[in-house]
Amino acid sequence: MSVTAAAGFRASGVTAGLKASGKPDVALVVNDGPSFAGAAVFTTNRCKAHPVVWSEQAAADGRIDAVVLNSGGANCYTGAEGFATVHFTAEHVADLLGTSAGDVVVCSTGLIGEHLDRAKLSAGVSAAVTALAPGGGDAAATAIMTTDTVSKQAVAAREGWTVGGMAKGAGMLAPALATMLVVVTTDALVDAEVADRALRRATSRTFDRIDSDGCMSTNDTVVLMTSGASGVTPDEADFADAVEEVCRGLARQLLADAEGAKHDIAIEVVGAANEADAIEAGRTISRSNLLKCAIFGEDPNWGRVLAALGTTSAAFEPDHVDVSFNGVKVCAAGEPGESRDLVDLSARDVVIRVDLHAGEAEVTTWTNDLTVDYVHENSAYST
Amino acid sequence: MSVTAAAGFRASGVTAGLKASGKPDVALVVNDGPSFAGAAVFTTNRCKAHPVVWSEQAAADGRIDAVVLNSGGANCYTGAEGFATVHFTAEHVADLLGTSAGDVVVCSTGLIGEHLDRAKLSAGVSAAVTALAPGGGDAAATAIMTTDTVSKQAVAAREGWTVGGMAKGAGMLAPALATMLVVVTTDALVDAEVADRALRRATSRTFDRIDSDGCMSTNDTVVLMTSGASGVTPDEADFADAVEEVCRGLARQLLADAEGAKHDIAIEVVGAANEADAIEAGRTISRSNLLKCAIFGEDPNWGRVLAALGTTSAAFEPDHVDVSFNGVKVCAAGEPGESRDLVDLSARDVVIRVDLHAGEAEVTTWTNDLTVDYVHENSAYST
Repeated sequence: MSVTAAAGFRASGVTAGLKASGKPDVALVVNDGPSFAGAAVFTTNRCKAHPVVWSEQAAADGRIDAVVLNSGGANCYTGAEGFATVHFTAEHVADLLGTSAGDVVVCSTGLIGEHLDRAKLSAGVSAAVTALAPGGGDAAATAIMTTDTVSKQAVAAREGWTVGGMAKGAGMLAPALATMLVVVTTDALVDAEVADRALRRATSRTFDRIDSDGCMSTNDTVVLMTSGASGVTPDEADFADAVEEVCRGLARQLLADAEGAKHDIAIEVVGAANEADAIEAGRTISRSNLLKCAIFGEDPNWGRVLAALGTTSAAFEPDHVDVSFNGVKVCAAGEPGESRDLVDLSARDVVIRVDLHAGEAEVTTWTNDLTVDYVHENSAYST
Repeated sequence: MSVTAAAGFRASGVTAGLKASGKPDVALVVNDGPSFAGAAVFTTNRCKAHPVVWSEQAAADGRIDAVVLNSGGANCYTGAEGFATVHFTAEHVADLLGTSAGDVVVCSTGLIGEHLDRAKLSAGVSAAVTALAPGGGDAAATAIMTTDTVSKQAVAAREGWTVGGMAKGAGMLAPALATMLVVVTTDALVDAEVADRALRRATSRTFDRIDSDGCMSTNDTVVLMTSGASGVTPDEADFADAVEEVCRGLARQLLADAEGAKHDIAIEVVGAANEADAIEAGRTISRSNLLKCAIFGEDPNWGRVLAALGTTSAAFEPDHVDVSFNGVKVCAAGEPGESRDLVDLSARDVVIRVDLHAGEAEVTTWTNDLTVDYVHENSAYST
């Protein structure tokens, strides 16, 4: 039930005709309160889509009444007309719900540089309002899919309160606060500052540590809405843990559904001097096309791990580094270690462990392999 | 004739048996003087191969008598034994030529983390010395090939003096001073400082502006040797231009032979506030896997250009940017411009022009598309 797992929310997903495929393409998630505290994080891409520009302002005051999302078009680089479409959409939602447009977050996903059909979108929004239901989470999660092959939903149930979420994303996954469209809801009674801290911590530890293809989107948005409908105010740490649990669950689902991927690769950087070094090393390794091709070929090519590591500023001595693939230490102290032949990379999950022997910090980042299917999917997306 | 086009050089290429394919794998280029001024630039990867560590020292004094190169193994991450192999090789060359090991540059290319067979290499070096000939440039250029499908050679002939060069490289092309193995020779009479300035300027403007796959090698070396055999000391600017001409010719050949590539893509960033911004923008765009897949699919997906641009720190206003594909301005001032349908990307050469409207600086960088064949080649390289 995802975004409607927590009390105080209704959702819907409808077909507005924005997608050529005729699949659902408009989703709406509404907070019925009694509390309306919310928080959001956005892409750090400087080329932001119009919905992001709008929603940054809408979320700034810590109140979010509703999130309207469309697939079938990113509404990015569409000029003044594109921004007017966002404004119109927020006003339309607000009119129908009897709230303020300034409390409506708008999210779009799809191709950049194409105008959305405002008439279709408007009719879709009206239909979405009509379809709102306390059990509408599944429909909403389905309506935000683009190249996703499955909808992504996660729930963390606690004693008397709940956090639930939905996500869309199957490509352009790269860290920059958010990396996809995500809506998380909770009936816990928390204020906007607590919500903001919890969401920022969760995204930095989950979505920010996925790097499927190194490409950062223009539309990324992660929204957290709180209804307070449970009447329970959890301990802040417990609340943050539940939000992180939902975000982690969604993040793993995004990775598992990455376009064309055959392997999910965890890069465990250990023995780093500090967390920043571990993150830099993990991200850089995760972006090596050559390594990602090798994993597709089920080849434990550790030289490509070291070649990527050598381009970072992380503290390490090249002749101290160990590299293991699925537990086989193929590189020990910068020299050939156990035989490559012992490594089995046939399963989807692959663990590459890199010990820098420079300290105590550890960070795991995730990526996918680079496959023939990735190239096929991304060579034909807009045509 | 490449490295033997200039007077005062002999070269050879022989088969030592380092490559499983039985193809030539040891090359030697010898400077017969009377001058021995030389210069070299190396990878900035912190995980340097042993030959790079050796050669940085060998070239530091501005004298280079010979360059010995092997394919069939990178001799990188091979521990103390690997370094001893480099030392042994330089000593062996020096003994046979009657020079000092400290003036012998050693280059290796191939798989990382595998020991070179020292006995085979030694026999190959002896054979290469025996085979040295004033017309040996072709044989040398062939012996350094790895996944190259053609040998790369270039010559700039001037009035009374000549610059010639050879290169190997077909993957792991990313800027960091050098990005491949390159030997350039000249019979111009110039000192080591002039040679160094000319080589650094040339590499920064040519090899450093190719970024085929964003992956930086551990073994990259570019060497310039001068024999002075022409007796002519050209104007320094003319000399630098000739060196750059040869490097540019080799760089374009590397790009044209990049693994699996179907398109050579020139990214012309114009209207930048300064050269650094233009380089950053060009490199970042050239590393977008999504854009590179789109070009493979012959799709002028300009949204992916802007999404990449938005991750840079270059000065620009998102709603001022123009993007053209092969002369068709598909994005004008941040909005859809001419129809995508007017763009023909069927030819190998593609020009993407990005006008930042932020100044006067212009830089062109080059990359390739990301293809199914790239993935195939790099998923099966070491196995």
